[in-house]
Amino acid sequence: MELRAVGRVESPLRDRAAAPRQGDEGAPESTIAFLPEVADALADLAVDDEVLVLTWLDRADRSVLVVRPRDDASRAPQGVFTTRSPDRPNPIGLHRVRIVGIDGLRLRVRDLEALDGTPVLDVKPLLLGIDDR
Amino acid sequence: MELRAVGRVESPLRDRAAAPRQGDEGAPESTIAFLPEVADALADLAVDDEVLVLTWLDRADRSVLVVRPRDDASRAPQGVFTTRSPDRPNPIGLHRVRIVGIDGLRLRVRDLEALDGTPVLDVKPLLLGIDDR
Repeated sequence: MELRAVGRVESPLRDRAAAPRQGDEGAPESTIAFLPEVADALADLAVDDEVLVLTWLDRADRSVLVVRPRDDASRAPQGVFTTRSPDRPNPIGLHRVRIVGIDGLRLRVRDLEALDGTPVLDVKPLLLGIDDR
Repeated sequence: MELRAVGRVESPLRDRAAAPRQGDEGAPESTIAFLPEVADALADLAVDDEVLVLTWLDRADRSVLVVRPRDDASRAPQGVFTTRSPDRPNPIGLHRVRIVGIDGLRLRVRDLEALDGTPVLDVKPLLLGIDDR
């Protein structure tokens, strides 16, 4: 089960300490630069589309199974499958973003909380009635 | 970027021809059998939780970039990043399911459209206001 990057994130976010925890907490606009070999896969994306972007959180700690909730040291540690911590056995990031510009293989997006250089794995449409109900 | 299975799907669905396209079109109840080494990660999951399950769609065709929409041959082919086709460069399945039973490392779930034996990669909580708005 070997992943291949289909693109990379270009973002002003350089390290985890600076990153907001979820996209709408204030991630700066960023760009996804896709590889030329997947151009046909993104042909029908459009400005203003809301999509799901899957990334590989390459700076995560894959050995972590339990985390302490952020900002509340009094709460008990939680299994990572009930959190969105990047630290988990398979650190796949799932981001709901809005496309604000398209220039060839470059997608400009809003609300993508991912560090500069993060590999992009996939883009999926939101499914009304499934993801969005 | 090498994935590790954290569990496997046990389902009456044996092949793609029999599988519904999205979970709520009629997937039978199925079970996720987790590996003992990730037991701590799932400790806080609870019956009636709705969660996102990420799978590796191991019978997908990773060379596909463009698909014809199902059930409508008159529509133009579409780039896979605007579809939920399992055939795509990184065939990661994203499933919104409801937990209906927990027995140790075994989670019984509703609405998981995944074939028997499919590797499970991750479980994430739904984020109200993000995935669900």
